[in-house]
Amino acid sequence: MLMNQILKIIKEENGFAIIPHINPDGDTLGSSIALALTLKKLNKDVDIIIDDDIPKNYSFLIKKFPVKKYHEAANSYKVIFTIDCTDLERIGRCKNLIRDKVKSINIDHHTSNTFFCQLNLVDKKAAATGEIVYQLVKLLGVDWDSDIATALYTSIITDTGCFKYANTTSITHQIAGDLINSDANIQLVVEELYEKRSVPKTLLLGRALNNITILLDQKIAYIVITRRMLEECGATDGDTEGIVNYAKEIEDVEVGILFKEEENRVKVSVRSRRYVNCNELCKHFNGGGHIRAAGCVIESNLDKAISMFIDKTREELKKIFK
Amino acid sequence: MLMNQILKIIKEENGFAIIPHINPDGDTLGSSIALALTLKKLNKDVDIIIDDDIPKNYSFLIKKFPVKKYHEAANSYKVIFTIDCTDLERIGRCKNLIRDKVKSINIDHHTSNTFFCQLNLVDKKAAATGEIVYQLVKLLGVDWDSDIATALYTSIITDTGCFKYANTTSITHQIAGDLINSDANIQLVVEELYEKRSVPKTLLLGRALNNITILLDQKIAYIVITRRMLEECGATDGDTEGIVNYAKEIEDVEVGILFKEEENRVKVSVRSRRYVNCNELCKHFNGGGHIRAAGCVIESNLDKAISMFIDKTREELKKIFK
Repeated sequence: MLMNQILKIIKEENGFAIIPHINPDGDTLGSSIALALTLKKLNKDVDIIIDDDIPKNYSFLIKKFPVKKYHEAANSYKVIFTIDCTDLERIGRCKNLIRDKVKSINIDHHTSNTFFCQLNLVDKKAAATGEIVYQLVKLLGVDWDSDIATALYTSIITDTGCFKYANTTSITHQIAGDLINSDANIQLVVEELYEKRSVPKTLLLGRALNNITILLDQKIAYIVITRRMLEECGATDGDTEGIVNYAKEIEDVEVGILFKEEENRVKVSVRSRRYVNCNELCKHFNGGGHIRAAGCVIESNLDKAISMFIDKTREELKKIFK
Repeated sequence: MLMNQILKIIKEENGFAIIPHINPDGDTLGSSIALALTLKKLNKDVDIIIDDDIPKNYSFLIKKFPVKKYHEAANSYKVIFTIDCTDLERIGRCKNLIRDKVKSINIDHHTSNTFFCQLNLVDKKAAATGEIVYQLVKLLGVDWDSDIATALYTSIITDTGCFKYANTTSITHQIAGDLINSDANIQLVVEELYEKRSVPKTLLLGRALNNITILLDQKIAYIVITRRMLEECGATDGDTEGIVNYAKEIEDVEVGILFKEEENRVKVSVRSRRYVNCNELCKHFNGGGHIRAAGCVIESNLDKAISMFIDKTREELKKIFK
């Protein structure tokens, strides 16, 4: 059995690298740190390596286990885990670490996973990769501690949108309850992730919500963020994260869109409620993603990008709401 | 045992009234409806009666069981449940229904509960009254159905702020998981409660966030909402709900305050992160509430109310951050 093979490798080998995906989120980081802390408890040598920066809001997590950059990686890993990655491109240059004779293990929950490792522990029903790592930690039989539990709680709370997304199952809640029993510091996680909005981000959100446009019987809502708005609020590009959801969450809206002006191009984020396939919509502009959440980049000025994208969105909606 | 006494009354008696508290929330309504549906399954006559209006966002719940107004109440109830009420004042005129010979049962989880009924099933460790009703439904041994599970899920998700508040325990998650197994329609609950923001409310939130003031090394953040802002956004008083949290959720903020202008008075809502006792702070202005969330009404114009309340808040903060 696959899980037993992985347990055997962990017990018998040494020299592990754990690789989260680039553009890292709470699931990939929480799962990686929980697995690293567990391997440490088994007296294994283990590095976490990522070919990207870690967003500031996850500092509380990586305090518990150092995360190395690509250039700090050793040459001698015997076993490499990729965590929460659909394909090899998701680990950036870290793919160079997967050499001949290195055992590679892919732990993931995305439906689009390409089974790119020697062993592929992919559970598409798991709400988060953290759920799979939870099972692994259980089976390894190490003593749980607060740091491991907190890291996995972070995985789960972020990938389920605080247990609100449709991927949340009864198993998700059972695991969350068990992690609390293992002293997961949920107040820390909540405060670090959801109660530390910066003043510039708050101001930007205000400006964005005042700049909302509603179209087509309230089926489309879009928000525009210009460079000037970012500057005037003292905000950074990262501060736009999550704002697109406010467009989608408006009553009766089927498609919520965020247009963010960048230099000579416009970054588009799209969310849909129930019908529109955002992935297909963004493919028209060489983008992609998931059914209910996707994105693309349009090389043009703001007005033209909005007009082109909204036209395409109207077409899609007209197919659905005839 | 108390629980057994209540089970016995339910099984032996008939003619039940279930009373949620005024200014109803998801916990009192969800718990009341779950209990009413359960009693119906036991072929009991049961009314839910409230001396208040039901907020529009809970329409999806009360579709499952009609909620009567005070003047529609019958004269002949044998057993009355109060649900999620700290004291008799919380049921408004419905307290007149608790006559001699009526058996009264108080089901609640507030620490400040005054044990005002004949039987008082008060569990202060429960995150929501819904957790207690869940146990009751289990013990009554009726077949679970989606409506009962959905109502209780509503109780729990609303009173734990989507499992983010400190009251969330491993039991909370275990119950939530069990409710999903009993076909709780969590997508319905999430969509109705968290993804139906109106356009006026969205615009008001935008205006509010642009009208934020930060004081005292970012320890205080306050938001002002004037009558004019409400009018210009087409928003109602109810649309200000939840906005105070955006003030508290700013990085480093200890006290978040919302000042809402009303006719000849100002309504103040306060939230604190860790130290300030909001209940005590609001008591200075004849208000009150909980340690981390409270409110008061100041009879004055906006500028004066802000100045008085902020002065008091500064005093409190200076005691803490010497």
